[in-house]
Amino acid sequence: MQSLTVELGERSYPIHIGRGLLDRGDLVRPLLRQPRVMLVTNETVAPLYLGRLASALKAAGVDTIELVLPDGEQYKNWETLNLVFDALLRHRCERSTTLVALGGGVIGDMGGFAAACYQRGMPFIQVPTTLLSQVDSSVGGKTAINHPLGKNMIGAFYQPRLVLADTDTLNTLPDRELSAGLAEVVKYGLIRDLPFLEWLEENIERLLAREPEALAYAIHRSCANKAAVVAADERESGERALLNLGHTFGHAIETGLGYGAWLHGEAVAAGMMIAAELSAQLGWIGAADVARVERLLRRARLPTEAAALPVDTYLDLMRHDKKVEGGRLRLVLYRAIGQAVVSDVANDAQIARAIEVRLSDA
Amino acid sequence: MQSLTVELGERSYPIHIGRGLLDRGDLVRPLLRQPRVMLVTNETVAPLYLGRLASALKAAGVDTIELVLPDGEQYKNWETLNLVFDALLRHRCERSTTLVALGGGVIGDMGGFAAACYQRGMPFIQVPTTLLSQVDSSVGGKTAINHPLGKNMIGAFYQPRLVLADTDTLNTLPDRELSAGLAEVVKYGLIRDLPFLEWLEENIERLLAREPEALAYAIHRSCANKAAVVAADERESGERALLNLGHTFGHAIETGLGYGAWLHGEAVAAGMMIAAELSAQLGWIGAADVARVERLLRRARLPTEAAALPVDTYLDLMRHDKKVEGGRLRLVLYRAIGQAVVSDVANDAQIARAIEVRLSDA
Repeated sequence: MQSLTVELGERSYPIHIGRGLLDRGDLVRPLLRQPRVMLVTNETVAPLYLGRLASALKAAGVDTIELVLPDGEQYKNWETLNLVFDALLRHRCERSTTLVALGGGVIGDMGGFAAACYQRGMPFIQVPTTLLSQVDSSVGGKTAINHPLGKNMIGAFYQPRLVLADTDTLNTLPDRELSAGLAEVVKYGLIRDLPFLEWLEENIERLLAREPEALAYAIHRSCANKAAVVAADERESGERALLNLGHTFGHAIETGLGYGAWLHGEAVAAGMMIAAELSAQLGWIGAADVARVERLLRRARLPTEAAALPVDTYLDLMRHDKKVEGGRLRLVLYRAIGQAVVSDVANDAQIARAIEVRLSDA
Repeated sequence: MQSLTVELGERSYPIHIGRGLLDRGDLVRPLLRQPRVMLVTNETVAPLYLGRLASALKAAGVDTIELVLPDGEQYKNWETLNLVFDALLRHRCERSTTLVALGGGVIGDMGGFAAACYQRGMPFIQVPTTLLSQVDSSVGGKTAINHPLGKNMIGAFYQPRLVLADTDTLNTLPDRELSAGLAEVVKYGLIRDLPFLEWLEENIERLLAREPEALAYAIHRSCANKAAVVAADERESGERALLNLGHTFGHAIETGLGYGAWLHGEAVAAGMMIAAELSAQLGWIGAADVARVERLLRRARLPTEAAALPVDTYLDLMRHDKKVEGGRLRLVLYRAIGQAVVSDVANDAQIARAIEVRLSDA
């Protein structure tokens, strides 16, 4: 087991990464304010891991209540969130009961937002079971649900008390989701960690083959990168925005195609390519750099072309994104490979051109 | 104009109290991150004050978008909250747009919760137009909506950037609502400010007659009391719980009768009497103290009898309240008049007896 701490003062919390952590009720028990938890998961994860986690908690003397939600980004909405509130109230959960989110990013985002809002805040623990959620959504305290007009529009900054990333759970992850998770892993290399990018260029096939040691290394290094950024800027006023590389374009793809058509990581991969194209257009990086990003993403079996939506649709949806300020689009671009920056220098015509280039490749 | 500051570190904010503050766009403008606000109010307040506030903001160079919600506690729910999100997204409000809540406690609670959640937090300003919201809900950052199984169950701690309490708006307040606001004013005297209680015993009729000077004094002193408590305990881990005097009983009344049947302040008044009865039963205060509380509340034209609900219904609803910990009811009781304490010493039989005594008076 490897561990790191996300340093956020009194909201600091540990992340444990390793094999068999689902069985470690002993890691959970000391953090609970009362020996009772609400386990929230989805119908895909439940048959695989819910029983094991619940047994481990019971063995540690913890009562569990279980709630199984439908699976999919299209359920990341108020109606599903309300199922959590209903269950919490029906079982008379208190403000000191802990909510445990077992599943991928959708379960983590919704479980975390439910915990943030229930009685104005109950403790919660993340047990992420996808690569994406292990490297991304379990660090940083972003919780949210979607709105028909925009992804993650309704949410809160709310930190978990503990993250348990059991790498064994990745053995049941579909290939497509493993790749989608790798998009965020690659992102850390691209925005701030060139040595890690180089490691990924050497080891991407080991990750696709799910070698536990390589996975644990990549997860730990990704979390460490994210934790460092978040510790410096918890509420996204500055450096944290770099974590959105590819995301503004990616959100437009996800919203434009309807939630669930592309996986989040797939949309981010395409978005990181559009950002590379735009950065090249601005003269910040060269064609070889663009090709380098594209090569690695392709090896990770990720899309590198933009989704087939009208350019105007992209621009329109991007204007709804949270990264707009004073009407101007603030985008994460590459000053160099391994060094991202936030910039609003690109005008609509330049942005449209970059999207078109990635569309014409499709 | 009188002013005070709620001291919460980087979340500190000013409260201004006085006549004609609705016209003071100049007090608002310097606090905005962009010259655009979403004004949220209800159909009762809109015809009275929305135009005036909007004009004052426009005169100060601020664009306004206006949203008028239905009026009433029964609308403090997810469906109405979603109308705010819809409007924010439809008008492409950004994370740096400010939400201004113009109205009573329901508008403040919902507007504040919408601001807390929209894009994970946008700035907001309270312009409370009822006595209750001026002395209570505008201080302390509690925002929420109701759930069919409990009041204020879904919410956030989220601080405004500014509170403008225009005492002139109280001239249009129905008598019943003025009295309901006085319940919270009396509460501050009862829990921690005996000299203020004595002032109220001398001046309650001046408040009922809406003398501006008396009102401004009572509002300022109430806000100062609440601000002192909140500054010491922002997230209700300790002393802040004292502000809930009468509220656990009161919430049971509101939920049991259906939201809107009794006003919040009316339910709190009855709850403060039940708490007095229970404190007397425990031997902490005497019969003369109970009578003293009752006399002042009656003079303020507030109910002093419990709502006619079965005692079991009270107990059952109270167990759903946020003030339960480890299954035991933690109640705010009187150690003396002017000195409240949080205690879980009372058992169910004692609580039931106190409710029954106040019921039999009805």
